[in-house]
Amino acid sequence: MNTFGRLFRITTFGESHGAGIGVVIDGLPGGLAIDWTRVQKALARRRPGHSPYTSSRQEPDTVEVLSGLYQGKTTGAPLALWIPNQDARSEDYAKVAEVFRPSHADFTYVLKYKNPDPRGGGRSSARETAARVAAGAIASQLLESLYPELRILAWTSAIGPYETSYQPQSVEEVESSPVRCPDPAVSQAIIEYLELLRGEGDTTGGIISARVEGLPAGLGEPLYDKLHARLAYAMLSINAAKGFEIGTGFAGARMRGSEHNDPFIRTAEGEIRPETNRAGGVLGGISTGAPLFFRVAFKPIATLRRPQKTVTRHGEPTLLVVEGRHDPCPVPRAVPIVEAMTAIVLADFVLLHRASAI
Amino acid sequence: MNTFGRLFRITTFGESHGAGIGVVIDGLPGGLAIDWTRVQKALARRRPGHSPYTSSRQEPDTVEVLSGLYQGKTTGAPLALWIPNQDARSEDYAKVAEVFRPSHADFTYVLKYKNPDPRGGGRSSARETAARVAAGAIASQLLESLYPELRILAWTSAIGPYETSYQPQSVEEVESSPVRCPDPAVSQAIIEYLELLRGEGDTTGGIISARVEGLPAGLGEPLYDKLHARLAYAMLSINAAKGFEIGTGFAGARMRGSEHNDPFIRTAEGEIRPETNRAGGVLGGISTGAPLFFRVAFKPIATLRRPQKTVTRHGEPTLLVVEGRHDPCPVPRAVPIVEAMTAIVLADFVLLHRASAI
Amino acid sequence: MNTFGRLFRITTFGESHGAGIGVVIDGLPGGLAIDWTRVQKALARRRPGHSPYTSSRQEPDTVEVLSGLYQGKTTGAPLALWIPNQDARSEDYAKVAEVFRPSHADFTYVLKYKNPDPRGGGRSSARETAARVAAGAIASQLLESLYPELRILAWTSAIGPYETSYQPQSVEEVESSPVRCPDPAVSQAIIEYLELLRGEGDTTGGIISARVEGLPAGLGEPLYDKLHARLAYAMLSINAAKGFEIGTGFAGARMRGSEHNDPFIRTAEGEIRPETNRAGGVLGGISTGAPLFFRVAFKPIATLRRPQKTVTRHGEPTLLVVEGRHDPCPVPRAVPIVEAMTAIVLADFVLLHRASAI
Amino acid sequence: MNTFGRLFRITTFGESHGAGIGVVIDGLPGGLAIDWTRVQKALARRRPGHSPYTSSRQEPDTVEVLSGLYQGKTTGAPLALWIPNQDARSEDYAKVAEVFRPSHADFTYVLKYKNPDPRGGGRSSARETAARVAAGAIASQLLESLYPELRILAWTSAIGPYETSYQPQSVEEVESSPVRCPDPAVSQAIIEYLELLRGEGDTTGGIISARVEGLPAGLGEPLYDKLHARLAYAMLSINAAKGFEIGTGFAGARMRGSEHNDPFIRTAEGEIRPETNRAGGVLGGISTGAPLFFRVAFKPIATLRRPQKTVTRHGEPTLLVVEGRHDPCPVPRAVPIVEAMTAIVLADFVLLHRASAI
Repeated sequence: MNTFGRLFRITTFGESHGAGIGVVIDGLPGGLAIDWTRVQKALARRRPGHSPYTSSRQEPDTVEVLSGLYQGKTTGAPLALWIPNQDARSEDYAKVAEVFRPSHADFTYVLKYKNPDPRGGGRSSARETAARVAAGAIASQLLESLYPELRILAWTSAIGPYETSYQPQSVEEVESSPVRCPDPAVSQAIIEYLELLRGEGDTTGGIISARVEGLPAGLGEPLYDKLHARLAYAMLSINAAKGFEIGTGFAGARMRGSEHNDPFIRTAEGEIRPETNRAGGVLGGISTGAPLFFRVAFKPIATLRRPQKTVTRHGEPTLLVVEGRHDPCPVPRAVPIVEAMTAIVLADFVLLHRASAI
Repeated sequence: MNTFGRLFRITTFGESHGAGIGVVIDGLPGGLAIDWTRVQKALARRRPGHSPYTSSRQEPDTVEVLSGLYQGKTTGAPLALWIPNQDARSEDYAKVAEVFRPSHADFTYVLKYKNPDPRGGGRSSARETAARVAAGAIASQLLESLYPELRILAWTSAIGPYETSYQPQSVEEVESSPVRCPDPAVSQAIIEYLELLRGEGDTTGGIISARVEGLPAGLGEPLYDKLHARLAYAMLSINAAKGFEIGTGFAGARMRGSEHNDPFIRTAEGEIRPETNRAGGVLGGISTGAPLFFRVAFKPIATLRRPQKTVTRHGEPTLLVVEGRHDPCPVPRAVPIVEAMTAIVLADFVLLHRASAI
Repeated sequence: MNTFGRLFRITTFGESHGAGIGVVIDGLPGGLAIDWTRVQKALARRRPGHSPYTSSRQEPDTVEVLSGLYQGKTTGAPLALWIPNQDARSEDYAKVAEVFRPSHADFTYVLKYKNPDPRGGGRSSARETAARVAAGAIASQLLESLYPELRILAWTSAIGPYETSYQPQSVEEVESSPVRCPDPAVSQAIIEYLELLRGEGDTTGGIISARVEGLPAGLGEPLYDKLHARLAYAMLSINAAKGFEIGTGFAGARMRGSEHNDPFIRTAEGEIRPETNRAGGVLGGISTGAPLFFRVAFKPIATLRRPQKTVTRHGEPTLLVVEGRHDPCPVPRAVPIVEAMTAIVLADFVLLHRASAI
Repeated sequence: MNTFGRLFRITTFGESHGAGIGVVIDGLPGGLAIDWTRVQKALARRRPGHSPYTSSRQEPDTVEVLSGLYQGKTTGAPLALWIPNQDARSEDYAKVAEVFRPSHADFTYVLKYKNPDPRGGGRSSARETAARVAAGAIASQLLESLYPELRILAWTSAIGPYETSYQPQSVEEVESSPVRCPDPAVSQAIIEYLELLRGEGDTTGGIISARVEGLPAGLGEPLYDKLHARLAYAMLSINAAKGFEIGTGFAGARMRGSEHNDPFIRTAEGEIRPETNRAGGVLGGISTGAPLFFRVAFKPIATLRRPQKTVTRHGEPTLLVVEGRHDPCPVPRAVPIVEAMTAIVLADFVLLHRASAI
């Protein structure tokens, strides 16, 4: 179950402290020229250590192409990418292998898999998301080859108690903030909050918002494969993600129909579209042509530098003290992961739509 | 894409105003005795017209077994169920076929399918959920045959501005409220609010909470098929669902790690388990053995009895006036649908787990 | 596992002596006008009792549309079809329920499913193929709407020791023979052979050949989903099918490369194509544009009117004597089933190809 | 579509003359100790250059483990294997890139994929089967951990006009022949025939037989996923495979029911089983517990050292002259590939069966 997608499919492999992280991308048409600078740039955004507010593990995350490329273009065969691990210090983790870390997957992985790789969280580590980001950068290029206007943009809209409803217009706006929050005042408050938490050995969660513009109408395959149902599936497969909402989401649950409903209008160009897009770009599980808008909630990073009570694998009470490099918040680094998973979901729907649009 | 599941699979068919609604359930082992009273009881809970706060369409929703049963037990062959439509008054909808109803799927269905069935919303109607509820009642019986302690319970935790954090202990508690809200004061406030909305020809949204007890640890297939990722996928495939969260969800995004983290403890019985279950029953996408807890947000019913501005299929501005029978809120009737989709997801994971647990 | 296909998908249900046989067809685009006369005609060809050389069970096989049609055209929703059983005489089978019939599926179904429906073979009966034929007639119409020149034709090329290499040009040629063998001399020999077998209470097997013309080049999804690999999969899912070969098949295994190889030529129209088509229309698992040609071997009907030694479910030796209506050979009736499964496989590949052909 | 399987799944990647060949194996339980000697031994059997009758390309085929292993045992995460290409001489192929080689996949790959890797056949090369063999060796170890008596054995039963019905009892018997034909007289005739063909610059096809002993009864998932239907699917996905038959197969099509039918008997141990196993180990698509027996036909190697007429990519008639290293027959090297694909199919069915056997 390490494969995601139906026609555009990624299969990932690799562990935090193994040889590296890989992904096989299947379903790419032949003849697509790949811009590898974009892939590396996407990986650089995900990489730990890019700012003071992320983990200090240093990985160049250089992608090697194992297969599927000929003279710079896809061949229709699986594109396999490999990102070697270089800064995997297993010794950091040796001491924690014997205890179940609170709110980590160690417990369930041991239960389910008997012999999971314990080094650095093994397969359950967020390091796996490097493969997603690389695949997402390929998916984006496929999407843009078909829909040149299509743009996927995600950003930090909340960390801890600090939240903004401001929507940025460009990736530059997002990147101008070290915490990827495009609202300068909120960004500043978040930075100060993360400094405070760091001092206290504590962590926090947050919310990422995402918008897709230039998406064609008609994507989505009801009933079960509604566009937003697949997006929710993809987003909640990301480490630490605990919630998803599209359009007005949970806030919409409190609204009246007369407030929430969205009249159709005819634009000056003669197109029919919903006026307010409170639905977030989908109706009945199918894209309307209006921008997609959704949000993903992340729980706080579970690794604290404070001592925590827990038990060993044998049930003995113990105190867990973790040293080493850890983010105070998963959200800034998860922004490019949300974008990547969005691209992967949309690439799949675009191919499906081509099959069904007769 | 009208199939959901990998080993326990449902394929549904049928439209609001066609001959009926059906479901083929594949993956059932042979020899399972089915209690049809439970199936009918689940359908009765979903049925419109069961209380003053739901639509007045009258459907007996009597299940016919088309295949897969011999001497009262499953045969290992597909169990196909059929629920005839009896109270489908197409004339109610004739007048709306030519306009795009605000916040409805008419627009996207016409775009994508060219010739969708327009009668009563056709395939996009919530009537399809009768098939899900019937299948869910079968899935529940499969689950209970394997885990007799397993209980799935959903309830109304918010409608409009009225919300409760109270968690009921039994289905009777839920059913004692006509709006399926087990907190008597909030239930009463909701009832009054729905009366008010009805008078004003308006509608509202709400939130359903769900809890699963007695679930074994180890269910879930990371990385992409995390238990909560598949639950989100299933829940957002329900009509009008716009958000999903597990455990603390969006609220957890605002918490600190030191508040949110959940120490492992050893119980008096010698079992290791998380102490607070803030994670909602999953870690790393795998069930911990603690109760599952999640919430689903629903937007307001889009059909209002107030006149609404919109356009015709040809883009002409018009005023939509709908007569007839419509719920003021999707939530009370969606409670058994949330339970059904939960059972369907869990039955699939249970079968998958049996395959992988070697 | 009662679903076949990836984008064009059929899910079948029903048993020989249950209420009927059904199929849900998913993946059809909206707006396709269905000619139901063709569906009924295809079913009539499969139906027992259409000639002296098939079983005497009398079923009108009238298709009812349960869902997916509006004003005579597909809606994009699942097209569900239902064929009621009318001439199911269970008493014929009561006496055989307690013994394992030689070369029948009773033994394995009891083993695997504990409580299989024993009436008339239940789910393992060839009656299920009515659903395949109905779905195939829909698939054919989808194919022809996209490729008007596409023609699928199957015929009896061998029964028992009588074999022909003659290839017919039309369905009329095939239907002119009561055993669907378009070579008149061989047809006559087969008829006499079947009369002989009938007199002796014996049965036989045979071979069906099939050809598809007008198929576009490019269908097939290597490596694992080669066009002929999926055809083999589909054909061997038919009851009593025991072998499949494409192009020269087993005979080609005895040939030299210099005999077997097929030079590419340029036709008068300027198209490149293989000259001899010994490959049977595929190279590397992808259609070449030349006609598909393949053959399917069927074992003899296992139900004999001669007494046969076997054991009861409890292992007691017994003599099985079967009365009632049974074909002497599965092949004539399986001709439309082979055509149907071919159409279903091709419809799936056509949709997949549309997705990948960018 | 480079993934095969449902629960035990392989995803392969890589090209003949790229960096290497890889496979991601998903669905393995955790805690399985892998014997890598067996994997290398299986690869050595497939490797070209192991005998005078196979191609002279020299590849050590050393497997590198990219992920999924910890302390010598599987972790439940994907096991990714990588086999670097070392002796890929692209220059051999440069001259053929511009012509469509007769009976090769160049033509269809160019048509379908626009920019396929032309070096050495790229993705369509039999080099990809190294990945299958490695995965098959893992699948075999999974199978044997569950069913210690299970043995998969394949052998050459025919090459060109030379054929044997002898069935070997051990892999040593098979390996004692340089062409993997366990009948010494036929082996000798084949060797002489291959010498003759080599001298004439010609090639031939052949047939591989396979038998599986110790398989439990109950594997197979009718209707569409019959055990032999999936085997046919897997076998026909192998390069150059053009036919499949199980049990008596095409020969059985010529038999009478009274000759072919297989009475059930009770063994001395009190087990019920078919007496003759003419069905080849399956009834109704489900394993009976008797040995599986099937055969796979391969067409002649398409690369000849004789000049052949064909056309260029632009349709110009030309004469193709190929130098270099090529097998005279695909069959001896395909023996371990047939065994590997058998193991992969069976591992998948074993996991599925565990899910359904409740």
